[in-house]
Amino acid sequence: MSEFNIIQEYFNRPERRYAVPAVLGIGDDCALLDVPAGQQLAVTNDTLVEAVHFLPGSEPEALGYKCLAVNLSDLAAMGARPLWFGLSLTLPACDSDWLASFSRGLFQLADQYDVQLIGGDTTRGPLSIGITAMGLLPQGQGIQRKGAAVGDSIYVSGHLGSAGLGLKMASGEWNKVDSSAALTRFLRPEPRVDLGLALLPFASACIDLSDGLSSDLNHILTASVVGATIHAAEIPMIPDLQSMPQDVAERFALSAGDDYELCFTVPLDRESDCLAVLTELACPVKRIGQIESEPGLRLQRADGSVGGISPSGFDHFGETYHGA
Amino acid sequence: MSEFNIIQEYFNRPERRYAVPAVLGIGDDCALLDVPAGQQLAVTNDTLVEAVHFLPGSEPEALGYKCLAVNLSDLAAMGARPLWFGLSLTLPACDSDWLASFSRGLFQLADQYDVQLIGGDTTRGPLSIGITAMGLLPQGQGIQRKGAAVGDSIYVSGHLGSAGLGLKMASGEWNKVDSSAALTRFLRPEPRVDLGLALLPFASACIDLSDGLSSDLNHILTASVVGATIHAAEIPMIPDLQSMPQDVAERFALSAGDDYELCFTVPLDRESDCLAVLTELACPVKRIGQIESEPGLRLQRADGSVGGISPSGFDHFGETYHGA
Repeated sequence: MSEFNIIQEYFNRPERRYAVPAVLGIGDDCALLDVPAGQQLAVTNDTLVEAVHFLPGSEPEALGYKCLAVNLSDLAAMGARPLWFGLSLTLPACDSDWLASFSRGLFQLADQYDVQLIGGDTTRGPLSIGITAMGLLPQGQGIQRKGAAVGDSIYVSGHLGSAGLGLKMASGEWNKVDSSAALTRFLRPEPRVDLGLALLPFASACIDLSDGLSSDLNHILTASVVGATIHAAEIPMIPDLQSMPQDVAERFALSAGDDYELCFTVPLDRESDCLAVLTELACPVKRIGQIESEPGLRLQRADGSVGGISPSGFDHFGETYHGA
Repeated sequence: MSEFNIIQEYFNRPERRYAVPAVLGIGDDCALLDVPAGQQLAVTNDTLVEAVHFLPGSEPEALGYKCLAVNLSDLAAMGARPLWFGLSLTLPACDSDWLASFSRGLFQLADQYDVQLIGGDTTRGPLSIGITAMGLLPQGQGIQRKGAAVGDSIYVSGHLGSAGLGLKMASGEWNKVDSSAALTRFLRPEPRVDLGLALLPFASACIDLSDGLSSDLNHILTASVVGATIHAAEIPMIPDLQSMPQDVAERFALSAGDDYELCFTVPLDRESDCLAVLTELACPVKRIGQIESEPGLRLQRADGSVGGISPSGFDHFGETYHGA
C-alpha cells in the first residue's frame, strides 16, 4: 500500500461536513484556511514518540485518540476553539489493522469536537506521531501564561496525578494497583476544550498540565514574574490516589505529567462571575492557592507548615518516559 | 541541557524583527497569528526521517536548511508567501555541536525569506525533523493541482535530476561522478519561493517536484482529469547529467525526486504575459510539453516516437530512500 493509498483509505473523509471547513483540505501541496475578521489563529504542535511519550506496543486506537487530545489541550489552554489539524505519521511498516484502529481513535476525538484533518504526511521510520492543531479565538483575547497577577486565585480542573498512576499500571511497574479511572485518564486524556472556551473572558493566565503541576505552574509564575502558595489539602485527586500514603499521592499530584487538566488563574473581581459560568459545565474545577509577590512556588500542608517546591516535572532529555 | 534550554539556546531569537511577525511566538501553549482581511492562510507539513529522507550522519547544517526548504517549496507551489513555521525536533541525544550547526542552517534559509519560527517541540528519540510551514496568499487565488486544462503549456523551473545524481554521490553509490552542482542541489535545494509568488496570476496548476517529474506531474493530471505529452529533448538538465547515457539521464530527470523545482501549467492566453514577468526573475523556466484530453502521461523522443510513462516516483512504503 502506497503513502497515497494510506491517506485515501484511512484519513481522507470528503463526505464529512464541518461547521468551519477548510477552504482546501487534504490532497494538494498546502491546505488553505480562512480566518474571519476579528479572529486570530492559534497554532500548536506536539509529537509523540514511541518509548518516550507512549509505551511500545500501545493500543493504536487509544494512541490515535491521545495524540490529538494532547494538541487540543494546548489550544484549550489558550482559550481557542479547535478546528483543524495536520498529521505527520511515521510508521515502521504499513499495517492495515494498526492504521484502521489508529484512525478510528483519532477521528473519534476529532468528530467529538468537529475538528477537520487538513493534511497528512506518511513516512516509513520509527513510530512517531506529529500533530499540528489549529483553532480560532477572538483577536487579542488568547489566555497567555504571562497574565497572572498578585492576588489572583489559582485553579485546576478535574483531578491530578491520575495519569501518572495509570502509567505505573500500564507499564506493569505497579501491579498491585487497580484503578480503571487512572488507566483511562492515562490512555485517553480528555482535553478541556469547553473549559478553555469558557475561561476566555475570565482567566488571567492558563496552562495545560502535561509535565506536572509543579513544573507547569512554574511556567506561569516565571512568565508572570510572580510566586504562589498552593494548599496540599485542596489538590483534587481520585479516591484511588487519596488512599495511598500521603507523600506518594502528593508526588503524583505535583510531579506526574500527562493529566492534561488546565491550571489557570482568575482575578478576584472576576472570580464569582467565572464560577457561575463554570458551574454550568460538566468539568469540575478546584481553587488550590493564590498568586503572591514573593517568587517561587510553595506548598502549604494541613498542619500549616509551608515548604518550597522545585519544578520537578518531566524533562525529555533527563528521564525516560513522559507526556507531550 | 533541558528541552526548555535547548529552545532558549538554539531556537529562540526574540531580538530579530520580522516584516509580518506572529502576534505570539515561541514560549506559550500556542502561537497566535493574524491573517489580514482578504488573505488566506496556506499550511503544509513535511517530516524528514533519518535513513528515509536523509542519509545517516548527514551534515546537520545542510539538514537544517533542507528540512525548511522542502516545506517552503510546498508553499511556493501554492503561490503563498512564507511567513511562519513550527519545528518538531526528535533527537537521539542532546548534542550541542549538532544543534548549533542544525540551527545555523535552518535560520540561514529562514532569514533569507524572513520566515519566523513560532513554536518548537523537542523530544528524545530516533532522529526526525517535522516542520509545519505557514504563509499567506490573496483569498481564493491559491494555485491548486486541479486547474490544468487542455491546451495549457507545461513548464518546469531549473534543472531536473540533479538532486538524484547528488544522492548517488553523497551515498557513495556512484564514486566516479563528481558534480558539485548535483551535490549542492541534493544537500541544499532552493525552494522556488519567488517563482511561486510570480506565478500566482498566471499558472492554472502547480506542484513542487519532490517525488520526481513523472509522479508529481501525474498528480496534476489526475486532479485536473487530463493527460499530457512532454518532450524528452526539452527537459532541462545540468551538463553533468546530459553527458551521461541518454536512458540514464532520462531516468534521473523523470523519476528521481528531491529537486524541489516547480512544475506548472499556463493557459495559452496568459503565456506571453507570464513569460514577460518570469524573465525578470533569476529563476529559469522551460516549456516541456502540453496538456491534452487523452488521459495519461506520454514522452515524445527526438526521433518522434511517443511512449507512455507510468508514475514511477518514490513511494515511502516501497523504496528505501527519498525526499519529503
